[in-house]
This record gives sequence, C-alpha cells and structure tokens, in this order.
Amino acid sequence: MGSELDFISWLSQQQCPTPDVIVGIGDDAAVVRPMVHGLVCTTDMLMEGSCFLLHDAGPYRVGQKAIHVNLSDLAAMLAIPKYVLISLGIPRSFSLETIKNLYLGMKNACNHHDVVIIGGDTNSWEGPLTISVTALGEAPAGGSPLRSHAQVGDGIFVTGPLGGSILGHHLDFQPKTDWISFLRQHPVRGMLDISDGLACDLLKICQASHVGAELFAQQIPITLAAKELAAKTGKTSLEHALHDGEDFELLFTIAQSDIPALVAAHAQSPLPPTLFRIGEIVANGFWLKNENSLTKLSPHGYEHLFGENAPPEQ
Amino acid sequence: MGSELDFISWLSQQQCPTPDVIVGIGDDAAVVRPMVHGLVCTTDMLMEGSCFLLHDAGPYRVGQKAIHVNLSDLAAMLAIPKYVLISLGIPRSFSLETIKNLYLGMKNACNHHDVVIIGGDTNSWEGPLTISVTALGEAPAGGSPLRSHAQVGDGIFVTGPLGGSILGHHLDFQPKTDWISFLRQHPVRGMLDISDGLACDLLKICQASHVGAELFAQQIPITLAAKELAAKTGKTSLEHALHDGEDFELLFTIAQSDIPALVAAHAQSPLPPTLFRIGEIVANGFWLKNENSLTKLSPHGYEHLFGENAPPEQ
Repeated sequence: MGSELDFISWLSQQQCPTPDVIVGIGDDAAVVRPMVHGLVCTTDMLMEGSCFLLHDAGPYRVGQKAIHVNLSDLAAMLAIPKYVLISLGIPRSFSLETIKNLYLGMKNACNHHDVVIIGGDTNSWEGPLTISVTALGEAPAGGSPLRSHAQVGDGIFVTGPLGGSILGHHLDFQPKTDWISFLRQHPVRGMLDISDGLACDLLKICQASHVGAELFAQQIPITLAAKELAAKTGKTSLEHALHDGEDFELLFTIAQSDIPALVAAHAQSPLPPTLFRIGEIVANGFWLKNENSLTKLSPHGYEHLFGENAPPEQ
Repeated sequence: MGSELDFISWLSQQQCPTPDVIVGIGDDAAVVRPMVHGLVCTTDMLMEGSCFLLHDAGPYRVGQKAIHVNLSDLAAMLAIPKYVLISLGIPRSFSLETIKNLYLGMKNACNHHDVVIIGGDTNSWEGPLTISVTALGEAPAGGSPLRSHAQVGDGIFVTGPLGGSILGHHLDFQPKTDWISFLRQHPVRGMLDISDGLACDLLKICQASHVGAELFAQQIPITLAAKELAAKTGKTSLEHALHDGEDFELLFTIAQSDIPALVAAHAQSPLPPTLFRIGEIVANGFWLKNENSLTKLSPHGYEHLFGENAPPEQ
C-alpha cells in the first residue's frame, strides 16, 4: 500500500468489470467506449490545509468529498457520471490506516454512484495531502443546460435547503445524481451546482445569461444547520442560506410555462420533496424580494446585504 | 492572475475555437464530441521537490513537462491527443512572472500538439507547486496496442536513443505524437512509453504478456548524454541506456513477419531515422545478449546487471 503499483492493483481488484471499459487500470492509459451524446469532463483538486483540515474531517470523508465535488459538477450538466481518474500526493508520514481510509472513502463514493475508477497516479511526498480528481460523464441527448441559458421570466429553483454547510454538510453531502434523469425530462435552462453560495452562484448564471434575478426571501429553504450557525454568528439564517458556500444543491431556471409540469412530475417522482421555487429571472439587477420591499443583493456577503440601509461596518 | 477566474479567462482567450468542443472552459464542466473509436484517458501529477526542482528546471519547462508526460502516455496507446484538464496548486509565494511562465509552458505544449485545454482548477496554497493533468485522446479504429499483447517471436523496437535523460531530456523531450499515424498503419502488439527505464519497462510488457525477452546489447541506441553521464558515474553508457528513466521513447513489439514492411515504410516516411530493432520476445527469462554471451538482466539497476558475475557491491 502506498506505492503506485500496490494502489493500482488494489483498486483493480475492488471494481466490478463493466463492458464500457475496454482497457482499465494497468496500461499507459484507459480506454472506454465513446459517450454517444457527448463527453462531459470536469476536474477539482482538494488540498490539505486549504480545502480541508485532515484532523477534523478524517481521511474517509476527505476521499469521499474529492469524488463528490466532481460528480456534483457533472450533475449540474445533467451528465451521468461514468468514470474518474484520481491523482494523489500522499504525505510520507501517513499511516497505512490513514491511506486505506482515504481510498475507502473514494471507492465507496464511486461505487455508490456507479462510477468506475479508470486511472490514477499515486505519489508519496513531503508536502500536504493533495487529491486531484477528473470525472467523465455522458451528456444528455439534447445537450447540457448551461449557465448562459437563463431567460427573463424563468422561474428559479433549488433542489434542497441551503446554508450552514460548514457544520458538516460540506463533507457529508451527496451529489444530486438522483435528480439527473428527472431533470433531463424537463426543459431546464440555466443551471449549476451551488458551491460558492446561492447569491454568488446565481449571479454567475445572471452574468453568463446577461439577465438579472429576484430572489423571494420567504421562499428560500433554510437548513437547520444555518439556524444553528446563525445563533452563534449573529447573522440571520437567511444570510447563511444566501452566502454560505458548499451546499452542492442544484440551482436552475426554467420557463414559466414549463413550471406546472415540472412541479407535478416532481410530486409523482420518488425524489425527496425538496424542490423549491425561490425566485425569478428579470431583465436587470440582482434583488432580494421581501413581502413589502425589494433590496439590492450582493454576492459578497453580509455587509452589503441590506444595500443602502446597511448598518455601518464594525 | 493567480486566482481561478483570471486563469480560466486567460486560458479561454488564448485558445482557438474548435468545433469538437461544444462547451469549453467557464461552465461546471466541459462538453466535447464523442471519440468514435473509444476515449483514451490518462492522468499524471508532477510535484515540486519530488518530481522536479523548480529552481533548476524553471516554471516554463515544468509546465511543458506536465503536459508532455501525459501526451506520451496517449502516444503509447496510439491515441491522438485531443484535450487536457489541468489542476494546479500554486504556492502563494509565486511571483506573477513565475505563474505566467508556468502557464506559457503548458499552453505552448498544448498548442504544439493540437491539444485543447478544456478544464482546470487553480488553487493557491502554502504547499509546494503541484500540477495534475488529465489527457484525453481518440483511440485507433482497431484498438490500442497494450502491454499484454506481445507474443513470442516478436521483434522489439524503440523510437530513439536512450539514457542520460537527467542531463536535460527529462524536461525537454517531445512526446512521440508524430509517430502515432505511422505506427497505426502497422500491426504493433505490446507497447508503452519508456518512463522507468528500458529494462524496467520492457519487463512490464513481459509480465503483462507472460513472455520473456532478449535485448541485443550491440543494438541498443545510446544517447550522447548517456555517454557523458557514464564518464562521471563510472557506469557504462549501456547501463545508463538500460536503466535510466524518463526517456519517453516508444517501446513496442511486432511480429517478425511484419518487420520488413515496418522498416521499409519507416525509411519512406518523414519521421526521423531513429527506429531501432533492439531485441526479441522469447518464451522465458529476461536476457541481455552480447556477441558471445547471454546474461540475466534485472530491471533494478547496476548491481544486478551482470548476474552471477556481478562485481561485489561497494
């Protein structure tokens, strides 16, 4: 364990053969059957000290998260996750137990989502733990929804409650792969997964689509964690839902005329009852709508949240 | 520069649009057209202090090498390189100049080989420079030659002289992508690119194919660098050619009956005159054949090179 050869042979033994993998781990490169509707590719690197604290998270959850963040990006493209390639920089000081738990976290995450590990590069070094994952998926027949596809009048939806991720969800979330086949049946337009916070990520859709947005303050689903965190931080739970990162829920827009069918189909589906309509795409500006007021919204957190009426900064 | 957004927009501006890239950098993932004969994928991570010394190599050559090692793996599968995804961990202490040179090394390497950068993840951190590249290519119609495809009687060939890579070639080599279309026209069997040294890598082919090999000592092409290095190390230049790593030449086997056509076609081709027949696949054992002797060969370097007649270790 720990050397590249051992890791690769260990991985090969752990995986079920699948007919789509023509050449698996062990040659210069893997060969897989073509993805007929297009190949969707993403990469994310997790680095100890910068993206996670190993002694807090533990190696299993770190391995799991390294896979999940990539599958979340594929889900945001409505791409079915198929394969990952994993590059590791492992500190020489790691125990066998730590390395095994890291691998188990990655392997179990892959198995759970029917993803095959087809390549890897394992290195020991003096630096901190580094995990780079590339995930490959199959595009939907009609093409992926993109950040630039939102249109004025679209409803804005999210697949689950937001905020307070730092209390645990940022490590234990499941990428929303179970929503892929459902959402493929509806003409979803602008879409991404929330990694930098609802406000920040919705602004990315707006900028890419050259539109604005209104968020309905009362409709934004808020996690228990956001409420728990708010009790400690002095911010409101809504602020946490708007600005905390790493929710990994899907955020998407869809034409008003397609909303009734979406909502009805969701109610009939086996998916969790966590589809929330939280706003509307408008021509200009970026707004938070309360019952009786419209406030300018900023993606950059607390201090600008209340626009002209912001309390002076400490 | 240095932040993810800046790097991504910089990259997007540097690249020519290509019709195969349906969605490029800037969304949750890239989407590319399917590779009809199969998708070939590989990943390699380069880490400062472990894989290179930045102050010796300079950031440009490190960036270039990070791309080239991956393209070399694709070439060994006779896959035409198409795309790369790049994950970076950049030390916060790096100057703008250093980062730019790193990027230029990667970009120029990609441009030279008609490869498009379709994804990336850039992180600043306190650790050493880390570069993880995943390369994607198009498989040949008839399938890739594999390590396990060598057969008894095959001739063993290499595409260039070997040894002494540490004197500069390990940073400045070109992956042998120019040999891909030529070798696709011949029924090449066992194949890989030499990264761990001729003896070590040939043994991988032998083990995967359950065969042995005889190397012809007089036929192994030796670089000037290996001779230069031998003058310093006290080893022979042949030992350097056999055991030094990072040559990144292609090593392959082909049936005896197909050798005349291969050699004749090579002589007519615009490729460099560096196709060398260096041995033969046999049923058992791993041998170095001199004019009048057959010596057991070990992949593990100097001290075992002469088998029973090895000089005592110092």
